[in-house]
Amino acid sequence: MILVNGEYKTHIPVTDRGFQYGDGLFETIEVKRGQAVFLEQHIDRLCKGCIRLHIPAPSLDILRFEITSLCNKFNTSSANTGDCVLKIIITRGSGGRGYRQPDIIEPTRIISVHPWPDYPQDYAKQGITARFCQTRVGLNPLLAGLKHLNRLEQVMARAEWNDPDIQEGFMLDINGHIIEGTMSNAFFVKDGVLHTPTLFHAGIAGIIRGLIIELAHRNHITVSEHLFFTEALLSADEVFVTNSIIGIWPIKQLETTTYCVGPVTQQLQIWLHQFKLDQLNKEWDDPNV
Amino acid sequence: MILVNGEYKTHIPVTDRGFQYGDGLFETIEVKRGQAVFLEQHIDRLCKGCIRLHIPAPSLDILRFEITSLCNKFNTSSANTGDCVLKIIITRGSGGRGYRQPDIIEPTRIISVHPWPDYPQDYAKQGITARFCQTRVGLNPLLAGLKHLNRLEQVMARAEWNDPDIQEGFMLDINGHIIEGTMSNAFFVKDGVLHTPTLFHAGIAGIIRGLIIELAHRNHITVSEHLFFTEALLSADEVFVTNSIIGIWPIKQLETTTYCVGPVTQQLQIWLHQFKLDQLNKEWDDPNV
Repeated sequence: MILVNGEYKTHIPVTDRGFQYGDGLFETIEVKRGQAVFLEQHIDRLCKGCIRLHIPAPSLDILRFEITSLCNKFNTSSANTGDCVLKIIITRGSGGRGYRQPDIIEPTRIISVHPWPDYPQDYAKQGITARFCQTRVGLNPLLAGLKHLNRLEQVMARAEWNDPDIQEGFMLDINGHIIEGTMSNAFFVKDGVLHTPTLFHAGIAGIIRGLIIELAHRNHITVSEHLFFTEALLSADEVFVTNSIIGIWPIKQLETTTYCVGPVTQQLQIWLHQFKLDQLNKEWDDPNV
Repeated sequence: MILVNGEYKTHIPVTDRGFQYGDGLFETIEVKRGQAVFLEQHIDRLCKGCIRLHIPAPSLDILRFEITSLCNKFNTSSANTGDCVLKIIITRGSGGRGYRQPDIIEPTRIISVHPWPDYPQDYAKQGITARFCQTRVGLNPLLAGLKHLNRLEQVMARAEWNDPDIQEGFMLDINGHIIEGTMSNAFFVKDGVLHTPTLFHAGIAGIIRGLIIELAHRNHITVSEHLFFTEALLSADEVFVTNSIIGIWPIKQLETTTYCVGPVTQQLQIWLHQFKLDQLNKEWDDPNV
């Protein structure tokens, strides 16, 4: 179910610069019982990304209206629980000459909903198995942090393994620093301090990553954003990954190193769940915590 | 005029991974009097790129048939001279879960023709004006050399200037090494030696770049592929840029430094023109040399 510039469509022009050059941005959002989770944070990141790429930001009224319409339509169209994944794509639209952008930019706005993925609940409770990827994340300060459409590195990294028992791979930059997972941000705990890679030169500034840092600060957990090597992960007390769909997944095994699901990870899962409920003004139980 | 998997269409599915992630490759080819120039070299690069990205390469018989059909149709559809630009895009098609590619890949094959750009002949004869871009080229050995669809860096670099008197911008990597122009490869001549950046960590391995190196070797001009800084360009005897549409454009001014159109550049223009005629088995005059 896809809205392209407000109309139900399945196709976009070949000329769209999102297709020709990856000239755009996207957001992936959890929809819980019909409500988009952390929607304001996602919209805020999308608009800031548009500013950085010099793409006119979409009308927020229209965006919110279309998101609500699509979620409602999705939920009434079948026996859904109201849980789904919402994706927003904003591109620079068509036009321009080669890489040069058109004088008047008419962005393309795509909103789509997708079935909620059937990840086992065990992943959040008992943890997942991860590996290190050979594919490196490119270093580019100008694009670092942005959730842009140039994601070939992640595609190539995710293609490195087929083993269904491995759920995520950590990606390094060319200097060997850990940057992120293929679809997630990376954290580790050592001696009570929470560590996560800085994203000045590479990586996506995830919404959940930002919230985890905020929740840690609020609760007087020291957070250290810096660059570190694989050894730091392998000698950590706790390791976990985050994104808007999975929330927090503890790592129980990384290559041959094993970890327990530790107290900081579990506490952050509880705080994140409570923060979500507070934002939605709802009182649901999270089966994962 | 666009062929999508052999059918005349203008749109592709939103789900195409070329659109979602830039998960694909492209070629931009000169068509001269109805014939695709250096076609075998372009097809060879495309197929090698497919191998590197694990995308099944298209059938070369179908590809050649469609290219010929489209060029013929374009040339008979209006009062064309037979000169146009041909673009081929190959993507991983639709499917898969997130970045993970589908188990069975059904690539998308897009062939399109576009009017020949109206660059002034002066650009090839008297040279162009260029600048240095602030936008850096990301360092990623895995993707280096490939003409893939992740081209946001080039879009952002080209957006840095609107001055119509500046035709190209040189892009550096984060270490300050010259990598390429926004739409071209970079060369300079110093004391009779031809220099061009190595592309192990970044940049596109252009078809004309490869031919220039080959022609220089054949004619006993020493070619040095290495990493160099802006100072090397600014103190060069000759500077030029290349791509499949522009051929060779000498640089007459780079920021505040001026150059003459030198003998090595002019000789390479003549050799490239002759090589093109030999490959096409034709005897045309090139108005640019």
